[in-house]
Amino acid sequence: MSARDTSSEGPEFHAVDLIRTKRDGGELSDAQIDWVIAAYTADEIADEQMSALAMAILFRGLNGRELDRWTKAMINSGERLDFSGLSKPTVDKHSTGGVGDKITLPLAPLVAACGVAVPQLSGRGLGHTGGTLDKLESIPGWRASLTNEEMLRQLADVGAVICAAGAGLVPADKKLYALRDVTGTVESIPLIASSIMSKKIAEGAAALVLDVKVGSGAFMKTAESARELAQTMVGVGRAEGVTTVALLTDMSVPLGLTAGNALEVAESIEVLAGGGPPDVVEVTVALAREMVAAAGRDDHDPADLLASGAAMDVWRSMIRAQGGDPDAALPTARETDVITAERDGILQSLDALAVGEAAWRLGAGRARKEHAVQPGAGVVLHAKPGMRVRAGQPLITLHTDTPDRFARAHQALATAYEIGDVAPKERPLILDRVT
Amino acid sequence: MSARDTSSEGPEFHAVDLIRTKRDGGELSDAQIDWVIAAYTADEIADEQMSALAMAILFRGLNGRELDRWTKAMINSGERLDFSGLSKPTVDKHSTGGVGDKITLPLAPLVAACGVAVPQLSGRGLGHTGGTLDKLESIPGWRASLTNEEMLRQLADVGAVICAAGAGLVPADKKLYALRDVTGTVESIPLIASSIMSKKIAEGAAALVLDVKVGSGAFMKTAESARELAQTMVGVGRAEGVTTVALLTDMSVPLGLTAGNALEVAESIEVLAGGGPPDVVEVTVALAREMVAAAGRDDHDPADLLASGAAMDVWRSMIRAQGGDPDAALPTARETDVITAERDGILQSLDALAVGEAAWRLGAGRARKEHAVQPGAGVVLHAKPGMRVRAGQPLITLHTDTPDRFARAHQALATAYEIGDVAPKERPLILDRVT
Repeated sequence: MSARDTSSEGPEFHAVDLIRTKRDGGELSDAQIDWVIAAYTADEIADEQMSALAMAILFRGLNGRELDRWTKAMINSGERLDFSGLSKPTVDKHSTGGVGDKITLPLAPLVAACGVAVPQLSGRGLGHTGGTLDKLESIPGWRASLTNEEMLRQLADVGAVICAAGAGLVPADKKLYALRDVTGTVESIPLIASSIMSKKIAEGAAALVLDVKVGSGAFMKTAESARELAQTMVGVGRAEGVTTVALLTDMSVPLGLTAGNALEVAESIEVLAGGGPPDVVEVTVALAREMVAAAGRDDHDPADLLASGAAMDVWRSMIRAQGGDPDAALPTARETDVITAERDGILQSLDALAVGEAAWRLGAGRARKEHAVQPGAGVVLHAKPGMRVRAGQPLITLHTDTPDRFARAHQALATAYEIGDVAPKERPLILDRVT
Repeated sequence: MSARDTSSEGPEFHAVDLIRTKRDGGELSDAQIDWVIAAYTADEIADEQMSALAMAILFRGLNGRELDRWTKAMINSGERLDFSGLSKPTVDKHSTGGVGDKITLPLAPLVAACGVAVPQLSGRGLGHTGGTLDKLESIPGWRASLTNEEMLRQLADVGAVICAAGAGLVPADKKLYALRDVTGTVESIPLIASSIMSKKIAEGAAALVLDVKVGSGAFMKTAESARELAQTMVGVGRAEGVTTVALLTDMSVPLGLTAGNALEVAESIEVLAGGGPPDVVEVTVALAREMVAAAGRDDHDPADLLASGAAMDVWRSMIRAQGGDPDAALPTARETDVITAERDGILQSLDALAVGEAAWRLGAGRARKEHAVQPGAGVVLHAKPGMRVRAGQPLITLHTDTPDRFARAHQALATAYEIGDVAPKERPLILDRVT
């Protein structure tokens, strides 16, 4: 019995009943899920009730039906983009985030060069994994905000767009993500999966390739948890009729040789010019092949279009279309500091999380949403694991406009690497593929 | 890494870290517990964080050290009464609540008649288990609010006081209980135990006897969960230096023959006059013996003082001391309705929860804190399980001022009892004793 039994008015459901059901291991009905998401978005459910429900979901999970419905309800909380009027197939990509993960930058123009439209709605970074928009904003003149009409026109004309998601997309997730962040309820696979997939589906993706990162620098520390997340997201995509493929890729070591905004743009341009670090090229091409295949255009091999310069042409048009100057010099940091090898030997390891923290502490990332980032700040690596180094040789260069930050970056890197005498075991970059 | 690492100001702890620790099965430190209770009481921790922590505690529990500290921190959130200046020993009683549970009414004066001071701070009812103050407020003139000085004087002069807890006692619990109520986090044994024990200890109890109810009409539905709660509370009492004993008593059937405010006062007066239903007398005397023993006054047998009329004398003084007229007629409901037996036979069962719901629907209880109760409303039982009944004989009389409520009370009682042909198994009233 409850005090609510006599109420003949008010909403159809009561938040506390949903919380109790989930807490006790029961299932939420479709109608309950639709109601809780809509009512929370409309501020009709208190934050303290939603956080209790999120914690109960963290412990009890959501089954497949519940998760599909939860995601659908999130999508329905706002507007949904529609690119079906384009003459080209569209495909979207999402990375769960990693250190030095600039892959979207070369990838979007590369896939567009293969005749596939890439509407890439991105975010800004918070914490040690930088945001794609922060990186592009280091290009003089480039702007992240486009109207839906500008986005559509650019997709038709250039084939690729990387821009900020409009406020109208999945307002439920904006509220729920901010709540989860302060209530210890981020680490729930169904809540992560529905957050990512609701945004991607609302962004109009017809096909979607996921890059699920695994390792110290990633949100998922183990292959098992990353695989579970990948499988969960692929299942949600299928339920919504979106062809979804996921690659599990290594994030125990930073991708490439840079972590920081302008530094990563410069490295991406190297890749588009046919050079760049081999790991960045490998992940870019692997994801591009998945995206092109998902769009039904596997008559093109992305490796060829990277070599031919066609991807670079799309990059230049894409930057220019959003007000940027692809030929402008990129900003550089005012101060640098170098960490050198203390002995001869072979670099054994280089911890992605520590490098990400160092870059963040140097000013490449932000501690709060309202902070600005330093476009030139970050870390440049001069060696990767498996490479031979000599005593006194530069290993890592730190870049910042604010040299008082060097000390804390050094702290972060103090135990980040090891020099030994035997070659470390090689790790594959692409760990698994989930369809 | 977290965005907070660079903060050089602000509180010592972060709520989200405590939530994560508990969520992942870790232990909270004494300092963390002190901080979280004090900061929540001071509105420095958001409700959505406290509810997430409460849900994590519901799943993960608190170990003995954490629970003792949590309780101590709750006590320290407000003032603490001190009756050590009295010339008599003091002992307090708490019941986890049941249907027809008027035991405090005859018990407090009975124990006082044995030379033990009984400071009984009580609450109002919400839901199907009525509140002791609601019952006493049906006595014309009686008032629940006393100052600490009035309470002390009455304890010295009369020996027993039943009054409202002041707002200064355990403010942390007032806030936390209201939060738990709407977030599905009531049903956590450590949170229940710390809520009850912090209040009782802040109320200055030197010794404490707990009546933990078991059965459909109680919060704890099984003997196992009731025993766990009892053991937990006894442990907390020991840690705070308060002699604590618990009895587990049956609440599958209502206590006595009445559920409702004035109806239960009348039945309590019958018990004090040496009569009354045998189950009410048995539980009252059993608890009185425990209280007298806990206070070191077991030279008195409560059964004798009930028989001698000494307890009735204390009752009359106690009511009079709080402005009540012990000789005034009690209010009665304007309308009654009778449920009769549909066949001859033996009453097999009479569900406590259903009877409690019926009384509540008739107006004896409230749906919201701000509602008033009907002093005369409730249910009178004419038979208890094991008694022989005849077709057409009254089984239950419903009392209310608002006859449109009869239909919903009948609904609640529709499957509440059964008439059969063989005598049902007798249930013991006192199920266990936990020390």
